[in-house]
Amino acid sequence: MSDAHAIRRARLKDRCTAAGSATALVTRPANVRYLSGAAPANAVLLVGTDEDVLICPHPPEDRPDDTLRVHVLPTEAGDPAVAAADFLLAQGIDTLAVEEHHLTVARHRAIHSVAPHLYLNDLACTVEQLRIVKDEEEIAALRTAAEIADQALGELLESILVGRTERHLALELERRLVDHGADGAAFPTSVATGPHAGARGHRPTDRRVEEGDFLSVCLGATYRGYRCEIGRTFVIGTAPADWQIDLYDAVFAAQRAGREALAPGVAYRDVDRAARQALEAAGWSEGLPALMGHGVGLEIEEDPQLAPAAMGKLDACVPVTVEPGVHLPGRGGVRIDDTLVVRPEADGGPELLTITTKELLAL
Amino acid sequence: MSDAHAIRRARLKDRCTAAGSATALVTRPANVRYLSGAAPANAVLLVGTDEDVLICPHPPEDRPDDTLRVHVLPTEAGDPAVAAADFLLAQGIDTLAVEEHHLTVARHRAIHSVAPHLYLNDLACTVEQLRIVKDEEEIAALRTAAEIADQALGELLESILVGRTERHLALELERRLVDHGADGAAFPTSVATGPHAGARGHRPTDRRVEEGDFLSVCLGATYRGYRCEIGRTFVIGTAPADWQIDLYDAVFAAQRAGREALAPGVAYRDVDRAARQALEAAGWSEGLPALMGHGVGLEIEEDPQLAPAAMGKLDACVPVTVEPGVHLPGRGGVRIDDTLVVRPEADGGPELLTITTKELLAL
Repeated sequence: MSDAHAIRRARLKDRCTAAGSATALVTRPANVRYLSGAAPANAVLLVGTDEDVLICPHPPEDRPDDTLRVHVLPTEAGDPAVAAADFLLAQGIDTLAVEEHHLTVARHRAIHSVAPHLYLNDLACTVEQLRIVKDEEEIAALRTAAEIADQALGELLESILVGRTERHLALELERRLVDHGADGAAFPTSVATGPHAGARGHRPTDRRVEEGDFLSVCLGATYRGYRCEIGRTFVIGTAPADWQIDLYDAVFAAQRAGREALAPGVAYRDVDRAARQALEAAGWSEGLPALMGHGVGLEIEEDPQLAPAAMGKLDACVPVTVEPGVHLPGRGGVRIDDTLVVRPEADGGPELLTITTKELLAL
Repeated sequence: MSDAHAIRRARLKDRCTAAGSATALVTRPANVRYLSGAAPANAVLLVGTDEDVLICPHPPEDRPDDTLRVHVLPTEAGDPAVAAADFLLAQGIDTLAVEEHHLTVARHRAIHSVAPHLYLNDLACTVEQLRIVKDEEEIAALRTAAEIADQALGELLESILVGRTERHLALELERRLVDHGADGAAFPTSVATGPHAGARGHRPTDRRVEEGDFLSVCLGATYRGYRCEIGRTFVIGTAPADWQIDLYDAVFAAQRAGREALAPGVAYRDVDRAARQALEAAGWSEGLPALMGHGVGLEIEEDPQLAPAAMGKLDACVPVTVEPGVHLPGRGGVRIDDTLVVRPEADGGPELLTITTKELLAL
């Protein structure tokens, strides 16, 4: 990956130069990792000086990219971002772009106080923007992450579920993710039964799975730093009730509409609208989620947001989730969530990474 | 706990008034939780207006304190910190203390742009300072957290360890923490075998436990938000080698010296020195950790730091870890870690929360 990281840094430098600041200080950990191949705790990356330098408070455990200089600070040296400013002063650099959406006011002041003549401007979300379109190596990592999540979920479906708590099911899924080679869970696994089912981001409780419940599960694996997401809803035991079938069909249709809307050049908000309108057409307009999907990568929620007010259009090689859901307070609900990669029609259209069936299974 | 939170907010207001700013905006999640009893995602707390207000981007799952007004923002309303500024303008308030060590430059600018005449000054770590000394309800939560961690560790010691990987042992410990009633792990469980043993914060790998290994384990439970920590080192299978006994004895003596140094009025750095000098006296002066312990509470690493350059003195009712260790690259090492509460001599001296034996067990 060393070439890949150097290429990414070169693209960042081009953007910085165009914006009038040749040097950038990257502090947000996922951005540091994206540009250097490693994110030692509290490390910062200085791009655009003679050499790119990763400044670390401790010797890094993971080896970053070979094309990068690694500078390990002495113990008790303080904030690496301040050390970076010192470094620039020594090189006579007078302008530095910083990530104002990540850097705290206190750190910004500390940089200013060691380097009062260094002009600090805003790098803004330049690195996050670069991260939206993935290269094939990144997509391969996401594909493996999705396979792991599919395997963990598949094994759970073969086990007995009635009587087990949400918390235990979530822990078992996380263990299975690691068993199958994940670095860890991509986010806290959500298992929601009965009245909890369908609620986005539900935190597992001690409620036990009961006959007749909806059970919705949302999990993801991290593989080589890349995070995917899959969500499915099942019914437990008996044949589903009519209201369960109707609700499931509506969410399924909405999720399919969202998936089918994914193509290069399509506006983010139009993907949201495709899924949202399908739900509304089926009579579900209350309590819909604020977004119908989002980008994934080194973080589980990245740009773009597939939301009503989102600005921008999809590109090829952008991995996103499509995850509509309906939650009826007191009764439960349905969520269906896939990770897909946007691909042009000529390449077969969107690539589905999470392949577990979306039929309504009665377990 | 509602009275407790109102009392804490009253103490914060006293400090703010003394510092010249009657109103404070608390953004750091652990601080929000400390003062309100809940920390809904991205919620901010405004203290010192007519009423204290918790401003939340979504309806909170956990009920905060009754003495607090909860204001839920409409969907897409943006940053609650900016909404807070709007709120102050309506009340004619002209000065606001913010947590500059937590608030990003971008959020600070956004507040300034909606309220250009609002003077923003620095609350600094005022809330973190208030959090250092715990009340008995907080200590009770830590005591339960420590019992849970002791139970999880005790059960692991009764199982067969040889041949199992660090990752699996860590996952099993985390499952046991939840089984015994923890909200979750207080931090990522560390299991370190053979050459990894004794390294602080070691991330579990696929290395398997072997006969003759040192095995060091560091885990903690979160209970009602409060986080404890315990670390122990064992030898596997056979009787320990002489070098293992010598190293263990040295770390044990250092840890005891640190524990015995804990008393109200003792300088933080003197606790560090007590443990550090014991290691140095035994001939271990290379590769010692940067600190010999730290505060615990709503976060696993809080003030105070028990480190050579730390300023300040212990008070009664301050829970801290004492955790010296020695790691010999390529050979392994020993760490022993307890959570204790500082108590005056008259009350029996330091209260040990993590009671698992510190004898060198051969498992």
